[in-house]
Amino acid sequence: MPVATRENARSVTTMSTTTDSSLPHIVVVGAGFAGLNFCQRIPSHRARITIIDRQNHHLFQPLLYQVATAGLSAVDIAQPVRALFGPRPNLTVLMSEVTGFDLANKMVKHARGELTYDFLIVAAGGVTSYFGHADWEQFAPGLKTLDDALRIRRQILCSFERAETESDAAKRDAAMTIVVIGGGPTGVELAGAFAELTRTVLNRDFDHIDPAKARVLLIEGSPRVLAQFDPALSESALHQLQKLGVEVRTGLRVEAIRAGEVVAGGETIRADNIIWGAGVAGAAIAKQLGAELDRAGRVKVLPDLSVPGHPEVFALGDMVTLVDAKGVTVPGVAQGAIQMGAHAARLVMRELDGEGFAPAGREAFAYHDKGSLATIGRSSGVGEIKGVKLTGFTAWLAWLMVHLLFLIGFRNKVSVLIQWTYSYFTYKRGARVITGATGGPPANAA
Amino acid sequence: MPVATRENARSVTTMSTTTDSSLPHIVVVGAGFAGLNFCQRIPSHRARITIIDRQNHHLFQPLLYQVATAGLSAVDIAQPVRALFGPRPNLTVLMSEVTGFDLANKMVKHARGELTYDFLIVAAGGVTSYFGHADWEQFAPGLKTLDDALRIRRQILCSFERAETESDAAKRDAAMTIVVIGGGPTGVELAGAFAELTRTVLNRDFDHIDPAKARVLLIEGSPRVLAQFDPALSESALHQLQKLGVEVRTGLRVEAIRAGEVVAGGETIRADNIIWGAGVAGAAIAKQLGAELDRAGRVKVLPDLSVPGHPEVFALGDMVTLVDAKGVTVPGVAQGAIQMGAHAARLVMRELDGEGFAPAGREAFAYHDKGSLATIGRSSGVGEIKGVKLTGFTAWLAWLMVHLLFLIGFRNKVSVLIQWTYSYFTYKRGARVITGATGGPPANAA
Repeated sequence: MPVATRENARSVTTMSTTTDSSLPHIVVVGAGFAGLNFCQRIPSHRARITIIDRQNHHLFQPLLYQVATAGLSAVDIAQPVRALFGPRPNLTVLMSEVTGFDLANKMVKHARGELTYDFLIVAAGGVTSYFGHADWEQFAPGLKTLDDALRIRRQILCSFERAETESDAAKRDAAMTIVVIGGGPTGVELAGAFAELTRTVLNRDFDHIDPAKARVLLIEGSPRVLAQFDPALSESALHQLQKLGVEVRTGLRVEAIRAGEVVAGGETIRADNIIWGAGVAGAAIAKQLGAELDRAGRVKVLPDLSVPGHPEVFALGDMVTLVDAKGVTVPGVAQGAIQMGAHAARLVMRELDGEGFAPAGREAFAYHDKGSLATIGRSSGVGEIKGVKLTGFTAWLAWLMVHLLFLIGFRNKVSVLIQWTYSYFTYKRGARVITGATGGPPANAA
Repeated sequence: MPVATRENARSVTTMSTTTDSSLPHIVVVGAGFAGLNFCQRIPSHRARITIIDRQNHHLFQPLLYQVATAGLSAVDIAQPVRALFGPRPNLTVLMSEVTGFDLANKMVKHARGELTYDFLIVAAGGVTSYFGHADWEQFAPGLKTLDDALRIRRQILCSFERAETESDAAKRDAAMTIVVIGGGPTGVELAGAFAELTRTVLNRDFDHIDPAKARVLLIEGSPRVLAQFDPALSESALHQLQKLGVEVRTGLRVEAIRAGEVVAGGETIRADNIIWGAGVAGAAIAKQLGAELDRAGRVKVLPDLSVPGHPEVFALGDMVTLVDAKGVTVPGVAQGAIQMGAHAARLVMRELDGEGFAPAGREAFAYHDKGSLATIGRSSGVGEIKGVKLTGFTAWLAWLMVHLLFLIGFRNKVSVLIQWTYSYFTYKRGARVITGATGGPPANAA
């Protein structure tokens, strides 16, 4: 068991009495599913943990699309990291941005100092990828953070406000067009929720426009939506989307995105609202680990999830790529991150528990697919749990249970449940309040 | 009864079937308490109403301090204006900013067009006033909008994150100092809530600092806090604030505010968090009415609440100043705005109801003081209802009932009640999520 030879000078001078500095030190970068699950599985008397995140909250990302579509409020799906751990001894939460690593000296550099470690867990998540078209980002925002979700919500609500007083028919139509790019779970859930927002909520709010006639377009490059699901479920999802009024265009490649315009398959579509749900890449910090990355910038970890050449460093979650012990490519979903966090914790605990530092004998990570679920608007969806295919209301109900079950923090569960029940029975949405915009809607959506 | 001779060209071309254009047209500027209460009292078959606001939501301002102090989330105290009226016929909601008036031609100009009216109701509210020191605003934000509240919350939470890793003691102390300027209800409620936030919520969140030792300072220029309340209640408020740990400094005039510094009574106080709760002025649009204003930029309305020389134009709420029929200066509180809205609606209805346009015979507005209440943190407060003085828990309970009763919108009431109950029993706060800041807390609070 290696013992840290240097200590973070700052934390020594201000160390609180609840930290035992003789314990081995684990630095965890990222308070997402992987990082949190790792921490929760390390008993507080076995190691000191410092968890760093540039946000002060854990985000329940599977529900982020509900914030973007005015179904939930931001606070419902976020929980302050400090509050999650409360007064747990030997755990320090640091709100700061990691800027680099010095793996040779076992050191993490962050915006406000540096830390030494015995074990390092890097689980910084993913970012939206535009496949080399970084200039598209300004016209087609992605959905990764709370601020992204609030920005998309504000933009869409404002564009309907603008449509309400727009006399030019072409401009009005553009303001009432939402294009979602990417037919994976995020794209499908967004498109379904937008269709529902316009057809069952906003439709009763306006006098001069009919939001129920808003155009919601889902563009997917491959031949079917939800390509990672069974083809029968993709087919069901397609029909459910169409029933909600979503125009689904598969096999259509996006060629260009400009202010208020998407060019796809040679056709120019005018839309003030373009949402990018297509690509995910590893967080930029992945590069700093010095390991080989795949094309999407994800770290190619060893079977035990450690970074090649550094058995004391694990990389987890959306920022890594791995074909697991069973030959399965681990998907970039919450389940994968949670299981990776648990696996790394198990390995670290075993070595802290007296077996010593033994990377050679480590167990390889194996992903257990507990099933996949995606909603398509209110009371429909598709999914597969232990080989059983679910569609329609059953899939939606399963999704609801699973997501409520996993929502971290008591208050959030109750608040989300109330909002959902309220939305379900009244078709209204409480969260469609525009913040961050004063002086009326912007004159131009871009 | 005057009939509009010109119509808004835009609304004619796109008019929905639920609007009867033969009805007289009332334009309401502002969806605050005065504007909403006016609209709610005009039966939908008696007039067409267009309500304009630059925000898409009605804000329950008395609870804004709870958003700033991380007790409630933004959506809990706001309700989309469109949702409030739902499918009510003959009412149009317009999200736009009013830029001016042409009273001679009975016309309102806004950012995206213009409207003619038969009656005009201007109830645009108030803005934060720095008493001629506009340069203080950047260092000491005021609290008037949801965005103000979210900004203050973000700033305070980030400054504790910064303190957690700050090794310089003076800088750490400054990051942990909150100065509230103004000992009126807003200042008292803010200071009480900040003291509680630091002493009963944040105190369990950090490892290296003790937020319970944060300095919360309330500065008031006059000899006592809550000067508009009975002196015995001011005295009680002072003791309750002190019990919570607020340092109350009365009779102290602020001489200068700079980045991270307040100069008052010759003393320089270093504080990364300075909140301005001292002054209110009429909204800037008040000037455009061409009527005489008081020093705070509020319209001097006639006893019937109409604008001198324009009996068809009423100005209401925080943007007006009036000594009422009983010789009482109407206070700038929700009650005053609500009663003014009701009074103007009564006068307008009487004239629409066949009595004709008769400004000479109009009843003067008389304010009914239903009582005042202010909370001081959790489970204490002061108040006076029908001459009965309340202090401590009773005052707090009365405040709770009154505010829940008046919170507009069902969902909000339930959600707020849950959050309060949750906070009450657990001392945690669900809303302390920082949004709008990425990459860690800013290096400098200013």
